Amino acid sequence: MKPALFEDKPVRFPITDVNGGPLKPLTQVLIDRRATSHFKSDPVPDEYVEAILRFGLQAPSGYNLQPWRFLVVREMENRLRLQKAALDQPKVGEAPVIIVAFAIKDDWKNYVDAIFQEGVRRGAGKADQVEKIKEMAIDFLDEFPSAVWLNRHTMIALTTMMLVAEAYGLDTAPMEGFDPGAVIEEFGLPKESEIIALLAIGFAKEPEKAYGGRLALSEIVYREKFGRNWVSQEDGTAEVAPEKAEKVAEEDTTINPSAQDR
Amino acid sequence: MKPALFEDKPVRFPITDVNGGPLKPLTQVLIDRRATSHFKSDPVPDEYVEAILRFGLQAPSGYNLQPWRFLVVREMENRLRLQKAALDQPKVGEAPVIIVAFAIKDDWKNYVDAIFQEGVRRGAGKADQVEKIKEMAIDFLDEFPSAVWLNRHTMIALTTMMLVAEAYGLDTAPMEGFDPGAVIEEFGLPKESEIIALLAIGFAKEPEKAYGGRLALSEIVYREKFGRNWVSQEDGTAEVAPEKAEKVAEEDTTINPSAQDR
Repeated sequence: MKPALFEDKPVRFPITDVNGGPLKPLTQVLIDRRATSHFKSDPVPDEYVEAILRFGLQAPSGYNLQPWRFLVVREMENRLRLQKAALDQPKVGEAPVIIVAFAIKDDWKNYVDAIFQEGVRRGAGKADQVEKIKEMAIDFLDEFPSAVWLNRHTMIALTTMMLVAEAYGLDTAPMEGFDPGAVIEEFGLPKESEIIALLAIGFAKEPEKAYGGRLALSEIVYREKFGRNWVSQEDGTAEVAPEKAEKVAEEDTTINPSAQDR
Repeated sequence: MKPALFEDKPVRFPITDVNGGPLKPLTQVLIDRRATSHFKSDPVPDEYVEAILRFGLQAPSGYNLQPWRFLVVREMENRLRLQKAALDQPKVGEAPVIIVAFAIKDDWKNYVDAIFQEGVRRGAGKADQVEKIKEMAIDFLDEFPSAVWLNRHTMIALTTMMLVAEAYGLDTAPMEGFDPGAVIEEFGLPKESEIIALLAIGFAKEPEKAYGGRLALSEIVYREKFGRNWVSQEDGTAEVAPEKAEKVAEEDTTINPSAQDR
């Protein structure tokens, strides 16, 4: 029997983390997550790999077109081939699971009718509007640089997979260092594929990489208009003047021993 | 006092959802999440907006460069201006919080030195390698189409914000329908900004949009090489032949009443 083209929401999936404990709240997951540099060889159980994929596929997409595609590489020989195509990063060969996130230019056009029809069947659209919405979608997407749209969408699903893996007590490393042509060649992907990112999943080897800090909300978040910098409730500092953005550009272009104290 | 350029991991943030209950596991969040079509006017408390932003900023990025920037629009008048720039979608005017995710071409270059230096200070890099890694990063990024790289990264942070908001019991709607030039003009963003997505956050008006289904793992996930389709443990169907990808292309380009049963 041919498998179904569509799936429902996940029903069967692990309800504990890989250690048998309850899942941490997402807030704690985000505090604990680090990009892992080195992995142990301990395998990731099949049911976790499957759940990570299935939950990732629940991500939203424009017109539900789901342009993301994934290649899961678990066999050692293949991971080593992937490592070579990925700037020889050791974690690619070390991690028991690597997900290659990619997209195939225009492949969404092969699915658009089936997706809209499935939507109608599930009450998410009206039959007599399918053709009109399809035209709108095609007009919208044909004006778009394809690579941007594919990257934008695929990262929603891949980020979801990363966070689900972390919530399940696994460690992850997202990667953008690879030779797209080599990945396409090595794994027989269509030539028009956009290779978007790799995600390594497994168990981190200690020690984990130190936390590098994050640009402050007051630096990169604006309120109501550009230049009106975010003021956190926590520090209660005065609002920052609009000209700040320009100033930073001048101040930060050299290594400045005092910059860290700002 | 000038605010600090860098922040630590979140320390103070709401530990219950907006109804005072415990946060759902991420798995449940993903099952429950729907793209919201209409919002009530109920406000999102400040501390939740701040937590959503701060947790989003914990997302990983290449070389920790964090090229994402965010504009938070909450004032009614501004939401209505944004709605006009966003194909007049009513949810933009309805939702009490809209986050505009954007990036400024080359703005990361203004921060690269400070970021690497902060990394050294926190033990995430070695002082004598900063210059070498900086050169590597600049070489890598200069070869890249800037819009692709900015979109790819910014969606990691925005997806994180979406899921944190959902975990806090809020409803969200990610949007890609807008006129980037109009958004830039209306909110005084730099001309070289890439407007990447909007995220509406608030409380959904019932009824929520029906679930449109998802393309099956066996359709868009491959094992070890392209064409070797994923076989779920759940359905136990036989492995699908490599030529399937081509076949689907032929079958799905017309609306086919039986397609939904595949």
